[in-house]
Amino acid sequence: MATHLQVFGVPGVPEATRGADLARMCGEALDRASLRLEPGDVVVVAQKLVSKAEGAMVLLADVVPSALASRWAAAYGKNAAAIEVILRESRRIVRMDRGIIIAETHHGFVCANAGVDASNVPAGWVTVLPRDPDASAARLQAGLARRSGVGIAVVVSDTFGRPWREGTVNVALGVAGLRPLADWRGRQDTQGRVLQTTVVAVADEIAGAAELVMGKTAEMPIAIVRGAGEWLGDGSGSMLMRPAGSDLFR
Amino acid sequence: MATHLQVFGVPGVPEATRGADLARMCGEALDRASLRLEPGDVVVVAQKLVSKAEGAMVLLADVVPSALASRWAAAYGKNAAAIEVILRESRRIVRMDRGIIIAETHHGFVCANAGVDASNVPAGWVTVLPRDPDASAARLQAGLARRSGVGIAVVVSDTFGRPWREGTVNVALGVAGLRPLADWRGRQDTQGRVLQTTVVAVADEIAGAAELVMGKTAEMPIAIVRGAGEWLGDGSGSMLMRPAGSDLFR
Repeated sequence: MATHLQVFGVPGVPEATRGADLARMCGEALDRASLRLEPGDVVVVAQKLVSKAEGAMVLLADVVPSALASRWAAAYGKNAAAIEVILRESRRIVRMDRGIIIAETHHGFVCANAGVDASNVPAGWVTVLPRDPDASAARLQAGLARRSGVGIAVVVSDTFGRPWREGTVNVALGVAGLRPLADWRGRQDTQGRVLQTTVVAVADEIAGAAELVMGKTAEMPIAIVRGAGEWLGDGSGSMLMRPAGSDLFR
Repeated sequence: MATHLQVFGVPGVPEATRGADLARMCGEALDRASLRLEPGDVVVVAQKLVSKAEGAMVLLADVVPSALASRWAAAYGKNAAAIEVILRESRRIVRMDRGIIIAETHHGFVCANAGVDASNVPAGWVTVLPRDPDASAARLQAGLARRSGVGIAVVVSDTFGRPWREGTVNVALGVAGLRPLADWRGRQDTQGRVLQTTVVAVADEIAGAAELVMGKTAEMPIAIVRGAGEWLGDGSGSMLMRPAGSDLFR
């Protein structure tokens, strides 16, 4: 168990455009900040930066809204083309009520607006989630490992709302080089009793810790979490998706 | 925005018994570890430790299970008295299916088993959540501020599951001296556009960061989060409860 964790925001990461080499951008920003990756570091990168670099953006002027999108947008003062993008990014609508759309994306994430977002994006555009966040994480991990020569993990994160609790928290969409779930089942507690059900989503807690230094205005889309090296290993963000069959809230 | 966050686990915190002085226990453990509280620190303490110190425990032998509890326990191989305690801690059952009970507690938390837990508890007992986690946090904050002479915040945390995602994450039940929600609405994004909807549950992210050093086997029920001082101020854990009227998943 780590007893000391550190989280560093990486300043000076430039705006990403389609085709940007994220590993190079991240590496150069680290160099400018005199930050050096260490073995076991987890690099957390905001989905928005990844989506921009991968061209996961939609120009709203190109979108012809469906009747459903148009009616919903008119009813709640939304942009009809943006609603249409949300519907296209969805494989199932979980809730559509009071102007809010909670959708299951084609990947299987359940989140507001199917991850479609207009903040920190040029006017007239929206970002969508990366097509394959685990692959995005793996590419960045490979590039950073090559540059730094050390074994690190990468988490592609986004802020999601939750039922029952106010506010959003950062969670891990894509994961490379990290076991996202710490499984304590079978270990003994302080009373010598075997723990039955405790699986902790450490990748989400790492993403949340990173968010504390990242800031919503997006000047700081990359953070380094140091001290979580015990969880490095094989894993993916898809391991954090609860299968529909064992979920009581689909 | 913090650009550097540190999280320290506090080793050597002894087992708490009813009536234990948590501020003194925490202060003495900090002294032994040569850790010193600094202004702006957030002290995160596991609910289990608080519940034990407050006597928020139930001896199962004293509990007469209702017919509902007995039938449910028999159907799923559970302890009928523990199920009865869950029902008593609930003001509403949100889901009761496949052996799982998701309940809304008398405080308003929605979580598995209404927060009733047998891990790290002497055989034959279960803990329940503190009666008033905000008051628990405020008492510990006052005691630690008195001992240390510096302004700090306190979060009483517990690990909760979530719909749609695997694994549990630590969240803030009780909060003292911390604004639990960072409200970015009205600020401008990097494109000069006003952010519309972004409220981040920083208290939950702080609790999650702490959990990464705390460990489920409970040798480390207290952690210090340093670098989040910008969020110190007035706040409570109840601010993190979404009102039923604005929740799509009750």
